[in-house]
Amino acid sequence: MAIKITGTGSYIPSSIEKNEDFHQHEFLNTDGSNFKHDNNVIIEKFKAITGIGERRYADNHINTSDLGFFAAEKAIADAKIDPETLDYIIVAHNFGDVVHGTIQSDILPCLASRIKHNLRIKNPKCVAYDILFGCPGWIEGVIQAQAFIKAGIAKRCLVIGAEALSRVVDKHDRDSMIYSDGAGATIIEETEGNDGILAHETASFTYDEAYYLYFGNSNNQKLCRDTRYIKMDGRKIYEFALSQVPLAMKNCLDNSGIDIKDVKKILIHQANEKMDEAILKRFYKLYNTDIPEGIMPMSIQKYGNSSVATVPTLLDLIKHGKMSNQSFSKGDVIIFASVGAGMHINAMVYKY
Amino acid sequence: MAIKITGTGSYIPSSIEKNEDFHQHEFLNTDGSNFKHDNNVIIEKFKAITGIGERRYADNHINTSDLGFFAAEKAIADAKIDPETLDYIIVAHNFGDVVHGTIQSDILPCLASRIKHNLRIKNPKCVAYDILFGCPGWIEGVIQAQAFIKAGIAKRCLVIGAEALSRVVDKHDRDSMIYSDGAGATIIEETEGNDGILAHETASFTYDEAYYLYFGNSNNQKLCRDTRYIKMDGRKIYEFALSQVPLAMKNCLDNSGIDIKDVKKILIHQANEKMDEAILKRFYKLYNTDIPEGIMPMSIQKYGNSSVATVPTLLDLIKHGKMSNQSFSKGDVIIFASVGAGMHINAMVYKY
Repeated sequence: MAIKITGTGSYIPSSIEKNEDFHQHEFLNTDGSNFKHDNNVIIEKFKAITGIGERRYADNHINTSDLGFFAAEKAIADAKIDPETLDYIIVAHNFGDVVHGTIQSDILPCLASRIKHNLRIKNPKCVAYDILFGCPGWIEGVIQAQAFIKAGIAKRCLVIGAEALSRVVDKHDRDSMIYSDGAGATIIEETEGNDGILAHETASFTYDEAYYLYFGNSNNQKLCRDTRYIKMDGRKIYEFALSQVPLAMKNCLDNSGIDIKDVKKILIHQANEKMDEAILKRFYKLYNTDIPEGIMPMSIQKYGNSSVATVPTLLDLIKHGKMSNQSFSKGDVIIFASVGAGMHINAMVYKY
Repeated sequence: MAIKITGTGSYIPSSIEKNEDFHQHEFLNTDGSNFKHDNNVIIEKFKAITGIGERRYADNHINTSDLGFFAAEKAIADAKIDPETLDYIIVAHNFGDVVHGTIQSDILPCLASRIKHNLRIKNPKCVAYDILFGCPGWIEGVIQAQAFIKAGIAKRCLVIGAEALSRVVDKHDRDSMIYSDGAGATIIEETEGNDGILAHETASFTYDEAYYLYFGNSNNQKLCRDTRYIKMDGRKIYEFALSQVPLAMKNCLDNSGIDIKDVKKILIHQANEKMDEAILKRFYKLYNTDIPEGIMPMSIQKYGNSSVATVPTLLDLIKHGKMSNQSFSKGDVIIFASVGAGMHINAMVYKY
C-alpha cells in the first residue's frame, strides 16, 4: 500500500500588492517610535532579507474559506475523483474567515464545513474538520490523513491550507509586508505501489517558543489596545528555525531510508528567502554534501508568505508546469518541510 | 490491544450565573422587536425546555486555554502519567481565547501550544494541535487519538474540550442563557485487553445544515453590525438532531456488536434537556426497547451547555463519584454522543 497525493490545486488571488504600495505606510518600532530610515530604505532592506517583491491579497468580498474552496475544486478536478467519495476534508488555517474591514475571526462553523457546503457534497460520512497548527498546518493535515488511512478509517482525503493574512496585519509593522493570501489543496489517497509518503516528522516546541508568533497590539500605540494583529519575534524565529528545522528534516530523511543524494526537490514553507536558504545550507551541511542546483524552488518573490498555503501552492505550481525550470518526474524524492506558530515544525519525505 | 481512557479531569468555574441573573436583560426577537411576555415568563419557559437553572462563567482573567490547562492537569494526575510521555495534545474548542471585554478570538498560537506550554512539557515530539468541530470536538479528538494509536504514530494522547461561551453571547438573545464555560480532559492510551473504544461513528451534514449554528449579529439592531456572536436556529437544530443523532448512535452500537440491553450509560452532549430526552426516546424506539432508568445522566441543570466540555466533564464527574446515583463499573458499556455546529454528529461505544 502507498499513500499518495493524487491531485493538487491552488488559488492565488489576482490582486497584486507590490512593495511600492507600502511607501505611504507609517512604519513604527514596537515601542511606537519612528524608524531612523525612510520607507525606501526599509522596503529595500525588507526585500533583501525576505526576497519578497510583491504578494497577493484576496478581493474584499472573498474570505479564507472561499480561497480554500477554489483550490479544492481544482484539486478534485485534477485527481479526477467524485467528491462524494471523500472520507475527510481537513482544512488548515490560523485565523478563520475574517470579513474585510472587520476584526473578528469567524470559525463557526469550521471552515471545512463551509468548503464542503460550497462543494455541494451530500455524503455525511465525509468528515469535515479544521486544524490549527501554524504555518505547518497543511503538512500536518496530510500526516493526519495518512494516519486515518493507515488506521483503516479513510481511503481518500482532501487536505487544504488556506489563509488570508492581509486581514490580520498591523499596517504600522514592517512585518506586515511579509504576509500574503492564498490556498492550496491536495487529494491524499491509498493506492498501489511502494512510493508516496515514505516518512514524516513533527515537533511542537512550546516550552520557550510558544509565543514567538502571537496575536498582539499595533505598533501604533494610539490605536485601540483591544484590537490585535499577527505579530512575530523575527529574530527568535530565525534562530529557532535554523537550529531545529534542518534536524527535523534530517530525522525524517533518515527514517525514510533515502540517501541525501537521491533527494530531488525540497519544498519548504515560504517564510523568508534568507531564512529558507540558511536552513537549506545547514541541512546539507549535516550530510557534508553540496547543495544541488535548483533543489529548493521558491515562490516567495511573487507570492509572499501565505502561511499554510505556501507549500501546497508550490507543489501545485510545479506539478502543472507553472514554475520555470521546475518539474517532477516519476520516482523523484521530495522533502516537504515547514515551521511556524506554535512553534511547530514538520517534514515529510515523499516519492513522486 | 485496547484503546482506553486512563485518566479524566474537568474544570468547572466557580462563578454561578443563575436564571434570575437574566431578569434585567433586554431580550429581543431576531428582528429587534420586543417579546410579548416579560422576562419571568421567558425564563420559566426557557427552563422548562432546556432544563437549565444555572450555568458557570469563567472568571474575567481566565481564558479558554486556562480552563483546558486546569482540566488537563487533573487528567494527567488521574492517569498517573508523566506528561513528558504524551505523544499528542489535541484541543477541541470553537472560539479560541476571547479575552474578557474584547471581541477577537485569539488562536495564535493554537490553544494546544498554550496548554502544553503551561504544563511545562519539554518533549518536542509531543504534537500539540487544535481541532474545530463544533460541540462534538472532544469526541472527535478521541477518535483522532485512536486513529494515531492504530496507525502506530502514538501511544498516549491528551484530549481536551474547553470553551468559554460566555465571551461570545449576545445578551439580547434568549439563547444566551444556554451557554456556559468549562473544560474536560482525558488521557487516551493503548493498553492490554479487549475493552475500551469498541466502535465510533462520525457524520458532517453541511449540504443544508452548515449554518444552523453560526456567527451572527446581535438581536439589538442598534449595536455594531460588525460585531458577531454565537447564534443558532434552534428549531432546525432540534429537528435535525432528533432525526440524525439516534441513527448515528444506532450505527455505532450495531458496529460495536453490543446488544442494546447491555448498554449501561449514555453520555450525551448537554445541549438542551428536552432535546436530549427526545433523542434518547427515539434511539430506544429504534430497538423497540424501553428506556432503562437513570441511563442518561444529565448535568445541564447546574452547568448549562459548555459545548465541547460537556461530555468529558460528565464522564469525569461520574468517574469520581460526583454525580448522585451515578457510577461506572468495570465492563460497563457507555455510549458517548454529540451534535453541534457544522453540523457534526458523532458517537462512540466504549467498554469501561
